[in-house]
Amino acid sequence: MANAIRALAMDAVQKANSGHPGMPMGMAEIAVALWSKHLRHNPANSRWINRDRFVISNGHGSMLQYALLHLAGYDLSMDEIRNFRQLHSKTPGHPEYEITEGVETTTGPLGQGISNAVGMALAEKLLAAEFNKPDFTVVDHHTYVFLGDGCLMEGISHETCSLAGTLRLSKLIALYDDNGISIDGKVDGWFTDDTPKRFESYGWNVIRNVDGHDVAAVDAAIASAKTADRPTLICCKTVIGKGAPNMQGSDKVHGAALGDKEIAATRQAIGWDYPPFEIPADVYQAWDAKEAGRAVEGEWNKLFAAYSERYPREAGELQRRMKGELPGNLDAAMDAYIAACLEKKETIATRKASQNAIQALALVLPEFLGGSADLTGSNLTNWKECVAVRSEQAGNHINYGVREFGMSAIMNGIALHGGYLPFGATFLTFSDYSRNALRMAALMKIRSLFVFTHDSIGLGEDGPTHQSVEHISSLRLIPNLDNWRPCDTVESAVAWREAVKRRNGPSTLIFSRQNLPYMERDAQQVGDIARGGYVLRDAADAKAAIIATGSEVELAVKAAEALAQQGVAVRVVSMPSTDVFDRQDAAYKASVLPKGLPRVAVEAGVTDFWYKYVGLEGKVVGIDTFGESAPAGVLFKHFGFTTENVVAAVKSVLA
Amino acid sequence: MANAIRALAMDAVQKANSGHPGMPMGMAEIAVALWSKHLRHNPANSRWINRDRFVISNGHGSMLQYALLHLAGYDLSMDEIRNFRQLHSKTPGHPEYEITEGVETTTGPLGQGISNAVGMALAEKLLAAEFNKPDFTVVDHHTYVFLGDGCLMEGISHETCSLAGTLRLSKLIALYDDNGISIDGKVDGWFTDDTPKRFESYGWNVIRNVDGHDVAAVDAAIASAKTADRPTLICCKTVIGKGAPNMQGSDKVHGAALGDKEIAATRQAIGWDYPPFEIPADVYQAWDAKEAGRAVEGEWNKLFAAYSERYPREAGELQRRMKGELPGNLDAAMDAYIAACLEKKETIATRKASQNAIQALALVLPEFLGGSADLTGSNLTNWKECVAVRSEQAGNHINYGVREFGMSAIMNGIALHGGYLPFGATFLTFSDYSRNALRMAALMKIRSLFVFTHDSIGLGEDGPTHQSVEHISSLRLIPNLDNWRPCDTVESAVAWREAVKRRNGPSTLIFSRQNLPYMERDAQQVGDIARGGYVLRDAADAKAAIIATGSEVELAVKAAEALAQQGVAVRVVSMPSTDVFDRQDAAYKASVLPKGLPRVAVEAGVTDFWYKYVGLEGKVVGIDTFGESAPAGVLFKHFGFTTENVVAAVKSVLA
Repeated sequence: MANAIRALAMDAVQKANSGHPGMPMGMAEIAVALWSKHLRHNPANSRWINRDRFVISNGHGSMLQYALLHLAGYDLSMDEIRNFRQLHSKTPGHPEYEITEGVETTTGPLGQGISNAVGMALAEKLLAAEFNKPDFTVVDHHTYVFLGDGCLMEGISHETCSLAGTLRLSKLIALYDDNGISIDGKVDGWFTDDTPKRFESYGWNVIRNVDGHDVAAVDAAIASAKTADRPTLICCKTVIGKGAPNMQGSDKVHGAALGDKEIAATRQAIGWDYPPFEIPADVYQAWDAKEAGRAVEGEWNKLFAAYSERYPREAGELQRRMKGELPGNLDAAMDAYIAACLEKKETIATRKASQNAIQALALVLPEFLGGSADLTGSNLTNWKECVAVRSEQAGNHINYGVREFGMSAIMNGIALHGGYLPFGATFLTFSDYSRNALRMAALMKIRSLFVFTHDSIGLGEDGPTHQSVEHISSLRLIPNLDNWRPCDTVESAVAWREAVKRRNGPSTLIFSRQNLPYMERDAQQVGDIARGGYVLRDAADAKAAIIATGSEVELAVKAAEALAQQGVAVRVVSMPSTDVFDRQDAAYKASVLPKGLPRVAVEAGVTDFWYKYVGLEGKVVGIDTFGESAPAGVLFKHFGFTTENVVAAVKSVLA
Repeated sequence: MANAIRALAMDAVQKANSGHPGMPMGMAEIAVALWSKHLRHNPANSRWINRDRFVISNGHGSMLQYALLHLAGYDLSMDEIRNFRQLHSKTPGHPEYEITEGVETTTGPLGQGISNAVGMALAEKLLAAEFNKPDFTVVDHHTYVFLGDGCLMEGISHETCSLAGTLRLSKLIALYDDNGISIDGKVDGWFTDDTPKRFESYGWNVIRNVDGHDVAAVDAAIASAKTADRPTLICCKTVIGKGAPNMQGSDKVHGAALGDKEIAATRQAIGWDYPPFEIPADVYQAWDAKEAGRAVEGEWNKLFAAYSERYPREAGELQRRMKGELPGNLDAAMDAYIAACLEKKETIATRKASQNAIQALALVLPEFLGGSADLTGSNLTNWKECVAVRSEQAGNHINYGVREFGMSAIMNGIALHGGYLPFGATFLTFSDYSRNALRMAALMKIRSLFVFTHDSIGLGEDGPTHQSVEHISSLRLIPNLDNWRPCDTVESAVAWREAVKRRNGPSTLIFSRQNLPYMERDAQQVGDIARGGYVLRDAADAKAAIIATGSEVELAVKAAEALAQQGVAVRVVSMPSTDVFDRQDAAYKASVLPKGLPRVAVEAGVTDFWYKYVGLEGKVVGIDTFGESAPAGVLFKHFGFTTENVVAAVKSVLA
């Protein structure tokens, strides 16, 4: 069975002349032990909600996953294996979520797969606490992860494995491919951690010195891990590229085709006489998991049917939430909340407006699962009824600790698992730390909501290390990420609603530390916020438009008022989400920003991005240097965010 | 002495009504032990090359550092302390390099200070191996770091402390402020690591259970740490905000002023009867390090004078390198290398062109200290004569392991220490992992060179997780970071030269995986590469300009040729560095991109950024989605990087 993986991996990589044979060949027996003895899954239904999750954190070993899916009976034909790494195949270079059935998450950027797995195991634990009943353990699965030295060197593995230990995620079982090799060669020149000791320091159960090429030994280790009350790391000693007689055990087998000669020698060495892409019937039969899968899901279906009878509300809720469907009363609740905002006309920080929106949403969204990277009281991600998640306490607000990247990758794992709608927060500047996890969420089109507060020099005295300048624009450059920077309570509410309702991707929600005034709007304007950009203040025969976001909308309005007094009619466009605005139809966009109308953009950030809207003849009032440490009011003045400056900018663009 | 720190910290924070009193008050005795018993420094010369380095990794405790600098006799007056967190004071919210004498690095973003310190300790170790002689240990200092729970939770602390252990940086001594509190409260809900065990797993010497309020105990621990053959972590049990009778030991003292009442109570509790910002003469005298500093530097100066006599070449080199001055023969060497490129006209990948430039530079730059985050053979950062750095082997190429963020922060530490010019590499997409360290380098204006290869869909089969789309533009948004994306061997050489010669900030050097053709240029054009953008192919009476970078320059030239055949004269502008181009005078910029000339930009990345150059009437040929897994040639075609498409784009903008 293991050799079938080896053959498929080396042949597919050879045919593509690209890929990574070393990991699949080295982890083949580990995969046999897990997939044939432990993994509870159903190849015919990769969306069965109680399946075990299986994650390859060392995602370059994608051919291992494809081989497993093909052999076990998933919808992945041999033609797809032959098409490894070709355009629009189901077998891309790294495993990709929603491209290939049975792939639970997109991996490749090291350390994030194990971190997604921590999120999945956490979601399982919380969901089990929420939905299981005496005699009805309807949520009860393991999360298995393969990982290598690369994942263990990455800092994010520290963040998330530390938290997994603290939260005692006992159904998380990680299998470490301890082959002593990374791309630069033998790791002992740069990686000498006592990894078992390290994981014990996190409170993990560690099983040391398992022979990764002994199926029985790995099987026994997994069986033991399943009985632990803590997450388990199984350290498997392996030989990278095992089976390739002249290349195994060296970095040469990691990331390139073995070549015809070595492949022939490997066939000989492992006794595999079949031509490329041919698997004998008995090997197929040994791997086939379709019948066992049908049985195991069938058993669960019976349990769930009984549960549904006894607990119809819970059963319906669990199904709704696992499908990612929103409750029917969400719109009404948000309409009511927005109506209250229109009534109250509050001048508050948008981070506070965000907290109010969270409060309104939490009452109708039991799947809401908030959190902060140790800035709860600053980010304001908590709400009145929220309960902190602890090792012995289920809840719906996570203190992630000072772990921005880990938080974001865990959120992605939670979103991938299903059952919860995760949001998590830090200061906007520290979106830098988590940036690749935002990218991965966007690539996977999942609903992770990233809250960033303290969004500009407006945070004041903490200074340039904490003041975002480039971040808002730079997040806008990530494909499929919707970014919202609202200017008041109403825009904040709409931003939250739209982010929650978005089905095909993540959003960021970017808020101020400082108070921002309420803006008057008519019903049409309130409705148009959801279009990303709209005319907030119009003027008959406007000679120019000022486009602004967030805290600078007030300034734009004041400048327009000053210009009006001087007889210059100017329109103010509020643009809380350029991403969403860009998706509107051409007619709407032209109605907001008519062709030929001179434009000025105002945002407390770098200017480059805004030329897209103002053109070569337009002006941008922004900051192209780092900030400074001083009170916020002093800084806005110092950096030229004054009515006079915006007025001057508008005058300079008038035809 | 400790109470002087407490008083200054609480009074300065109170006056600013902003800041973090908890850490300075909690680490006051630790600071007394280190600064009065161990730290070798000279307040009159903060640039003494053999001073001990002192880093506050928990940078929010800036008032601790300012208090120490003031009390010890650095050029930091009480007026500056009074001006804490005010515009253009020398006492900004977080410690800032080059704003305040004696501040070795800018900290605040957690985990990076300790990582900078690892770089400093590594630089010291390598420099000592290179310059010390029998009887002349001219390089011989410690690096001391204060850090807290936040730094230890951050993933980067894993990356860099793991490497520090592997490399046995025995002169690195970290003092852990183990107060059990982070912003969200008592850390045991989210941080339960056995930190001593964790650091032992990295091969560190760990001193446990030191009473952080007992000066003698801390003193003894430091003395013991200095004898270790490994880096040392001293775990100091402390009470955050120690001295504030009603608030100490809670998260309330972390990040806000104590208030007049609690300050009065603290004065009473610690027996400090002096008004705010008044230090009695005897306390000043106890702290004064000026005389001791003069003596300790004086002693070293004598040693160095003798060394200079005996080893004049080495002494001169050490001084030159510590000043960051480049060798006089650099320009001539690069001129010769560029002349060779012009001769050879090679079609090679720019990552290979980069390696060739590195080779040329390494021969004249003994301070060159390269490295890669476990992608040496892909990034091509090594050169013929380079020697790998190991725990027992000095060298000039570092295998950083799979630690992108850690690598970058260590490079910053090396640059800050002086004596080396660090460069380090990974794939461009994983610049995401290290992004905040790039930002910190730009903020500190230091010469760290970040090499990023595999810069687009041109890397092919590895797919969207590895293909940069938004990264080039997004790096351009970071203030003071110069980004270079050269198109061939000559531009690659100039980019390297300019990055090396830049004195006031870091640069990125962005290279292709795939081969790129050599471009013919005259001498003027070769010279103009250093201006960031220049006319590569001109045409009489050009009707449009195509602007391109890196791998798309070839496509721009081909499109211009096709257009020429159709009778449309088009100019091609190669723009390897938009940052550098933007700094040119208006006349030069207008000569390259005349006002009114229709423009098309071509780059295998997101389009938003380029409207800055092409305007609302221009076109951008780019990619606003993620990439795909397929061979590079297939992808360029699939995403529309074809001559026909660029030709069509140009035609669409013609007036």
